[in-house]
Amino acid sequence: MSRAIACIVADWGTTNLRVWAMAADGGAIERRVSDRGLLAVERGRFVETLEGACGDWLAGRRLPVVMSGMVGSKLGWKEVAYLATPLGLDELARHLSPVEAPFAAAIVPGVRFDDPAAPDVMRGEETQILGALQALGCEQGVFLLPGTHSKWAIVEDRQLVAFRTYMTGEIYGLLRSHGTLGQLMEGEAAHDAAFLRGVKRAIAGEPDDLLHGLFGVRALGLLGHLSRPDLAGYLSGLLIGTEMRSGLAWLAAKGRSRRAVAVGSPGMLESYRIAAGLCGLELTSLNSDDVTPGALLTIARSAGLLARGRLEPGG
Amino acid sequence: MSRAIACIVADWGTTNLRVWAMAADGGAIERRVSDRGLLAVERGRFVETLEGACGDWLAGRRLPVVMSGMVGSKLGWKEVAYLATPLGLDELARHLSPVEAPFAAAIVPGVRFDDPAAPDVMRGEETQILGALQALGCEQGVFLLPGTHSKWAIVEDRQLVAFRTYMTGEIYGLLRSHGTLGQLMEGEAAHDAAFLRGVKRAIAGEPDDLLHGLFGVRALGLLGHLSRPDLAGYLSGLLIGTEMRSGLAWLAAKGRSRRAVAVGSPGMLESYRIAAGLCGLELTSLNSDDVTPGALLTIARSAGLLARGRLEPGG
Repeated sequence: MSRAIACIVADWGTTNLRVWAMAADGGAIERRVSDRGLLAVERGRFVETLEGACGDWLAGRRLPVVMSGMVGSKLGWKEVAYLATPLGLDELARHLSPVEAPFAAAIVPGVRFDDPAAPDVMRGEETQILGALQALGCEQGVFLLPGTHSKWAIVEDRQLVAFRTYMTGEIYGLLRSHGTLGQLMEGEAAHDAAFLRGVKRAIAGEPDDLLHGLFGVRALGLLGHLSRPDLAGYLSGLLIGTEMRSGLAWLAAKGRSRRAVAVGSPGMLESYRIAAGLCGLELTSLNSDDVTPGALLTIARSAGLLARGRLEPGG
Repeated sequence: MSRAIACIVADWGTTNLRVWAMAADGGAIERRVSDRGLLAVERGRFVETLEGACGDWLAGRRLPVVMSGMVGSKLGWKEVAYLATPLGLDELARHLSPVEAPFAAAIVPGVRFDDPAAPDVMRGEETQILGALQALGCEQGVFLLPGTHSKWAIVEDRQLVAFRTYMTGEIYGLLRSHGTLGQLMEGEAAHDAAFLRGVKRAIAGEPDDLLHGLFGVRALGLLGHLSRPDLAGYLSGLLIGTEMRSGLAWLAAKGRSRRAVAVGSPGMLESYRIAAGLCGLELTSLNSDDVTPGALLTIARSAGLLARGRLEPGG
């Protein structure tokens, strides 16, 4: 490492811990990914887990650590109160929540959307959206963050004004691993003809048809219309297509055009890119690993952490 | 037992085995329920399992045994080919499939619905529908069979002409027992205010909103809008309400009025009765245990099993 590390940033989720050593100019000097997600942290041993991941970066240096994701949830290091929409994304830095550690460490708060009919929450995606704004040099747009809990978000003038979450990835995982559909399947979803068929079924289907469509996966298998290796792809397409149909209706109701920026992992981005093509949604894709560390560094700098190396009390 | 047993009938599903000793006049002399569903049958030991449940009824008598349900599936005693819709329900007796046993035993075939866009299958519900027709003395109607895989079926002139399945119960079970929703919950769904709230959310929600509504269960819990004991009831209501909204749209598309006969277990019937009331669906409820054995006896009699005690070859 020739450049000096100015800050350590982390995306700490339920399953994985991603850490980056950041240079002051915004570049990532090194990235490490481990399976030390929150579920793998022994009771309260967050400091030790983080030191296990990047203790060599911290050693002897007064480096700040800024983290986003489920690390700020009840099952994380410290429960950090959600900020409410509409939320200026530059406000995130003002509400960094410090945690006790032998180094200066703080967590980015999540966001809640107080729609009375359908309240919603996010933790981590607010940072990814900020990173996407930075990467694209824009102040507004529609953002789609596919994953276990897929988010659709609307940003106006750097303000997060509305968002909604779909349980797409979690439902896929449950049906793939448990229950009567998983028993019929072999392998995981691929981006093939079966996936396309599932997306098309979702788009062409009747409204509110998902619970029926899911049993249809079973019927297609039992009747021999889809092979065991094809069923998982079909299921994935059916779920993503259903999400996309609903998300597009939401955008239309909000007066938005069919255009969005997707931020996620490459595999997820490819699934959503294909489905978006079939749905008439124009999608720009960004790898979350490319935008998240920059956003965290920006937050750290805005909070004065790069200069001072610690958060001001009550800051 | 004062009356003579004329026939033994069984509803043999994945989880449970229900057997009835039937009198020739159609009355059930005795009923037994065990947890010896298909998943609990040791490799291929169906005869022994059945004898374990009602060997005393069979002992020394030449009694026929007629069975319906998943016992006729690939994971059952013998895979029996589905009959296609439109299907005259009186045809079931002509297609009874004998199995090898020291007594005369046969399985009622399931039914497939070859809708090219959304094929569907049932095993066991065809017998319940026949039983409901018998119990009500009618020849047609809409039938709703709630459960793990909830069925909506249309019967005209004793013919099963169309049906569709919703994965409602299985999705509830998966979300209750696994994943991020179950972790937030305490206890099982009750027929209370939280259940009603879930049904109302489903009815009032946007179309195609289920994947979003499911995450909403999580958000309502995390934000403290619903208590841990209320979340399961809300989820159950949300799922059943979503099924009902879709089922009612299907009935409307088929030119049917908002009236149906529900056949199921008392707990399920109560959930669906409450939801139907909120959805404007007029529901007549029948306990499946009251109608299934009569239908199986009718099938046995039509097949000549009561007189001969065995199926004619090729019959």
